[in-house]
Amino acid sequence: MAEAVKALFFDVFGTLMDWRSSIARESQAILEPLGYKLDWFAFADAWRAEYQPSMEEVRAGRAPFSKLDVLHRRNLERIMPKFGIGPLPEATLEHLNLAWHRLDAWPDVPAGLRRLREKFLLAPCSNGNIALMVDLARRNDLWWDAILGADIAGDFKPKPRVYLAAVEAFNLTPGRCMMVAAHSSDLAAASALGVRTAHIARADEYGPGRGEAAPTVPVDYAASSLEDLAAKLGV
Amino acid sequence: MAEAVKALFFDVFGTLMDWRSSIARESQAILEPLGYKLDWFAFADAWRAEYQPSMEEVRAGRAPFSKLDVLHRRNLERIMPKFGIGPLPEATLEHLNLAWHRLDAWPDVPAGLRRLREKFLLAPCSNGNIALMVDLARRNDLWWDAILGADIAGDFKPKPRVYLAAVEAFNLTPGRCMMVAAHSSDLAAASALGVRTAHIARADEYGPGRGEAAPTVPVDYAASSLEDLAAKLGV
Repeated sequence: MAEAVKALFFDVFGTLMDWRSSIARESQAILEPLGYKLDWFAFADAWRAEYQPSMEEVRAGRAPFSKLDVLHRRNLERIMPKFGIGPLPEATLEHLNLAWHRLDAWPDVPAGLRRLREKFLLAPCSNGNIALMVDLARRNDLWWDAILGADIAGDFKPKPRVYLAAVEAFNLTPGRCMMVAAHSSDLAAASALGVRTAHIARADEYGPGRGEAAPTVPVDYAASSLEDLAAKLGV
Repeated sequence: MAEAVKALFFDVFGTLMDWRSSIARESQAILEPLGYKLDWFAFADAWRAEYQPSMEEVRAGRAPFSKLDVLHRRNLERIMPKFGIGPLPEATLEHLNLAWHRLDAWPDVPAGLRRLREKFLLAPCSNGNIALMVDLARRNDLWWDAILGADIAGDFKPKPRVYLAAVEAFNLTPGRCMMVAAHSSDLAAASALGVRTAHIARADEYGPGRGEAAPTVPVDYAASSLEDLAAKLGV
């Protein structure tokens, strides 16, 4: 490697967090006592399915930038009728929407980040907003040097501006940064800017066997977990 | 207090960091071996004296926003001739400019923040840039939930936008946030927006007896140190 990597940027939903099980669990905990019986994984999948289309409105310039909490809320209200849910009191809606702040990390994440921070600056570079990242870090005992990503760029990945804002925030060049993600599209976008890449296999992200077990693009590292990445990076 | 405070925002230069001793020490360590003999505290004071005027150009809209590292560099080059310094090699200039990344915290700071984080979200809300805040945190073993302040707002305190961007990043209202600073002007600006305030006495910030031993504006708390503030906030 020509330049030593100094900073690692992390995708969060899917790469660090098991959003599917967490959203299913949180939705059930809130809605089942209200009498709703549904396929909670299908509900989580439907909510997540609105994610990319809602960001695409912003990326394409058809809507102003909004923090992800706002998009999650709009997406929630869009899918509720499809599941026969609602109307719900505002406080319930708000609590349900903040289910995204109560995700659990994959088991390897806290220990993996603890190892990696000994050698690298660490920051999430996620489309999630700052408050959401902060709550996930507190809940899962994660430790970041800074919260980078969509909010400081005013746009969403995979727009180049988001990766470049992260690089610039740390006073680095793209070649001294590495994007860590479970999604090849994220890594391809980072790589096109000269950012190094590491793929984490999350083969069950969207349910058993429905995730990227391996990258579909060239990467600098392909790892099975953050602990495996730490070992590959010599930490 | 009507609403419980959930987040503390910290001024950094002077409030958490003894910039004067640190800049004097770092400047001496770099320049004395090159044959320069000068009053290192006077040099630190002169560099710092350019700080507010350089930000005022941005606040007044006469210059575009630049991260503080860039302003520090311009200010350094402005004062060097007054002290008979230079020309210096680019690498030396760069290392000298990054002296601001190598400041030491006042002795009460690391332990005080460790106590405060048990009850509050913590973030710097400084005019320093993200990379600078990150380096100070690593050097002094500080721990932040996020790095807020000038870089995420694209302007400098005491412009309202900087405080409000910090409030918004945490999904809070001004009344649930508290600005912690050793400078009454900073606290007055935050208070005008509904942000709660805590003053930390740094009576020697600009040299013995040259600092704010007490606030000159009404504040919610006046403390002698972060440990004292923690005690006053019941942590």
